[in-house]
Amino acid sequence: MGTELRQALRAAFSGRLLTDAAEMAPYLTDWRGKWTGAAWAVVQPESPEDVARVMRWCHEHRIPVVPQGGNTGLSGGATPDGSGQSVVLSLTGLQRVREVDVQNDTITVDAGLTLFALQEAARSVDRLFPLSLAAEGSCTIGGNLASNAGGVQVLRYGNARELCLGLEVVTAEGDLWNGLRGLRKDNTGYDLRDLYIGSEGTLGIITGATLKLFPQPASRVLACVAVATPADAVGLLTLARSRLGAGLTAFELMGDSCLRLVEKHIPGARVPFNERSAWYVLIELSSEHADGQAASILEACLEAAFEQSLISDAALSSSLSQFEALWALRENISEAQGAEGKTIKHDISLPVSRIAGFIESTGAAIAARSGGVRLVVFGHLGDGNLHYNLSPSEGMAESDFLALEGPMNQLVHDAVHASGGSISAEHGLGVLRRDASARYKPSVELALMRRIKQALDPRGLLNPGKLLA
Amino acid sequence: MGTELRQALRAAFSGRLLTDAAEMAPYLTDWRGKWTGAAWAVVQPESPEDVARVMRWCHEHRIPVVPQGGNTGLSGGATPDGSGQSVVLSLTGLQRVREVDVQNDTITVDAGLTLFALQEAARSVDRLFPLSLAAEGSCTIGGNLASNAGGVQVLRYGNARELCLGLEVVTAEGDLWNGLRGLRKDNTGYDLRDLYIGSEGTLGIITGATLKLFPQPASRVLACVAVATPADAVGLLTLARSRLGAGLTAFELMGDSCLRLVEKHIPGARVPFNERSAWYVLIELSSEHADGQAASILEACLEAAFEQSLISDAALSSSLSQFEALWALRENISEAQGAEGKTIKHDISLPVSRIAGFIESTGAAIAARSGGVRLVVFGHLGDGNLHYNLSPSEGMAESDFLALEGPMNQLVHDAVHASGGSISAEHGLGVLRRDASARYKPSVELALMRRIKQALDPRGLLNPGKLLA
Repeated sequence: MGTELRQALRAAFSGRLLTDAAEMAPYLTDWRGKWTGAAWAVVQPESPEDVARVMRWCHEHRIPVVPQGGNTGLSGGATPDGSGQSVVLSLTGLQRVREVDVQNDTITVDAGLTLFALQEAARSVDRLFPLSLAAEGSCTIGGNLASNAGGVQVLRYGNARELCLGLEVVTAEGDLWNGLRGLRKDNTGYDLRDLYIGSEGTLGIITGATLKLFPQPASRVLACVAVATPADAVGLLTLARSRLGAGLTAFELMGDSCLRLVEKHIPGARVPFNERSAWYVLIELSSEHADGQAASILEACLEAAFEQSLISDAALSSSLSQFEALWALRENISEAQGAEGKTIKHDISLPVSRIAGFIESTGAAIAARSGGVRLVVFGHLGDGNLHYNLSPSEGMAESDFLALEGPMNQLVHDAVHASGGSISAEHGLGVLRRDASARYKPSVELALMRRIKQALDPRGLLNPGKLLA
Repeated sequence: MGTELRQALRAAFSGRLLTDAAEMAPYLTDWRGKWTGAAWAVVQPESPEDVARVMRWCHEHRIPVVPQGGNTGLSGGATPDGSGQSVVLSLTGLQRVREVDVQNDTITVDAGLTLFALQEAARSVDRLFPLSLAAEGSCTIGGNLASNAGGVQVLRYGNARELCLGLEVVTAEGDLWNGLRGLRKDNTGYDLRDLYIGSEGTLGIITGATLKLFPQPASRVLACVAVATPADAVGLLTLARSRLGAGLTAFELMGDSCLRLVEKHIPGARVPFNERSAWYVLIELSSEHADGQAASILEACLEAAFEQSLISDAALSSSLSQFEALWALRENISEAQGAEGKTIKHDISLPVSRIAGFIESTGAAIAARSGGVRLVVFGHLGDGNLHYNLSPSEGMAESDFLALEGPMNQLVHDAVHASGGSISAEHGLGVLRRDASARYKPSVELALMRRIKQALDPRGLLNPGKLLA
């Protein structure tokens, strides 16, 4: 595809066009360096209408389009394949906060706004936009919606899907659909919004969204507790749901191996107990009550947990710095694990009732088959979501460890499937989990997905090869 | 279509087949008697597999299928047309509670289970299934999902869509899709679940669902307050969201005209204030705290509202009977309005920030054009959802009033559309709002809906003429 075609694309829209290899490079590799592709061009349109112009042009010329937000995905969903035939469509040129409706508790923004900027826009009017995750400084809300991102406050506020009221989308043909409704209830037809959310750019290009805002909670209190087993952690979750009500904001499980890595690699990190336990849980209560009252409510819940022998120790944050230090234990696990060598990651979800059994039996199966790899298990237990990760055993050669990736993925995913779980809880399929997912999906479901894809992208130009083979 | 074909259908599945006119009659008219159709047969399969057999047979013979749950809809979505060519597919033969997973807080049921039976199944394990609406004794959960039902606790717990984790669906071709996942997070492909929810039986037949359960709240307290204007009610909502947090369970607006009708027609009903006000609000707080503490929290919120001059009077329930008497004021509005003669109804939603202006300007426009019809305005203000109803003026001839239906619908819906609202907040489109909705939808959206319909029901046999023309 030559110069003439590039010039035609250049004339077709207003934003930036990158064709120089060095300029394009950052858009062709994911941030972990796991996938690298090639592109015919990278485009950065300036507005939804400009995105529509790009899409109309690509549709007419049958050029595949790979949409990309902050390029922080974990599943390779935003990296083009190696053919060099695609256009990478970067949405980061679309950064407007379009409207804040404080009384309606909604905000309407461009898809390319970073999650952090969106959180700040909410804070500036004394509201909370609760989606929160590690990449929030770089990831975009459009990418969050395209992958239905989760994070640490899903238990109370829901994932990206549940925070979204309306969408603006450019179709494969380049039509601009304005579905930016700020309504809590609207039963006037098919739920296109939720079809685009989580579709990883394979059905349309999200260019804007209307999102829910919430009152800033008056207080947030956090406890770190020691539990003997995952079963006790699940018992504690049931108790916390009942005693803390809808204010239960986070419920994070962490294996002791996770926190030993954090203490080893992160300066100043310390588990707040003298005696170690096999497992720990972080519980956050956010509340409309003042700090002291919220702390009393959480303390009463923990006392009940002691009485039921569900926990053996507890540390409650009594200052912002303690709050942050406890959260840092959880937030630094990925970095600490990375410092230990290569990792094999799984982002799984299970019915909460199946988690304790899963951890026990899968741990035993891995121990029997893997030559002593270390389990680094943590995650959003309140949502049934575990990051069920593996690190090499001490002194294990990297190549030996990486040779285990395929068999370990299969072992873990088979066990997840047998327990009625999902092999991608919050990271999406991209290319990383595309084929594994297809192995477990009912054939009826795959056929329905293909019909939808065919209906909305008949030329197959939208993020080809992602999510569906 | 003759006896032979009926015999073939009879042989194709196990459940009941009704062909006698008297036996079929209850399935051919909606409960309000607004629509009456005809059918070639009524079938009542006994299981999801049996539904699949019916659908395979109908697909093969190209016979349209009208799915029906409890037949309590308000938009004519479950009544066949007059052609007599359709089969009515009653789901009420599917009534199993399949699985209750208390630890996972989920329940899996057949689509034909009544909402009340589902609520009871949750109660029997000390859990709450929070969907609650007037027809709950007769409506089925499958119908609730097909129409994405709302009700009085949406503010805290969400509508039917938000309460559903997994679905089982029979496709137009008669394939049975098992998507009954009890997972809070699952990002493995297109969101078929939400596509079927709210599609009013035009894309597939819901035969089962996995739904969220919640802890039973320790207490529920209710206040009825007097407010001068809808703007004050909206100000009170903002205050209540901030002060009551996620425990704010219901926030219902009622015009004084509504409550005067209730007092007139419902024995024993009484507004709990000596001085009348133009508007009232019901606020329910459900809480993990005991009664007394919850009442104190609600009282403190109301005191703040007094100080901000948002409310002029307040009555707090201090017993279950008072709680029920106050709720009865709201719940009896429809019946009281019905006792006053014919009604013209609108089920609308608006951004909360637009409601006060809408009520003022639309009320004035109606007063100017309608010869004194009475406004009966109430609804779920917390969700932005109003039942914006009209009753004839005193002594107005019924025919004169009914002649106003078209012009009044148009006036109200135009105003809703101009305010960024929806003309069907929780009742769906059926045949009642199908064409009106199409007038307001962007053409891109209608085209996308038609593509989805074509992809999932290529022969156009699923509830033809409903939702989409």
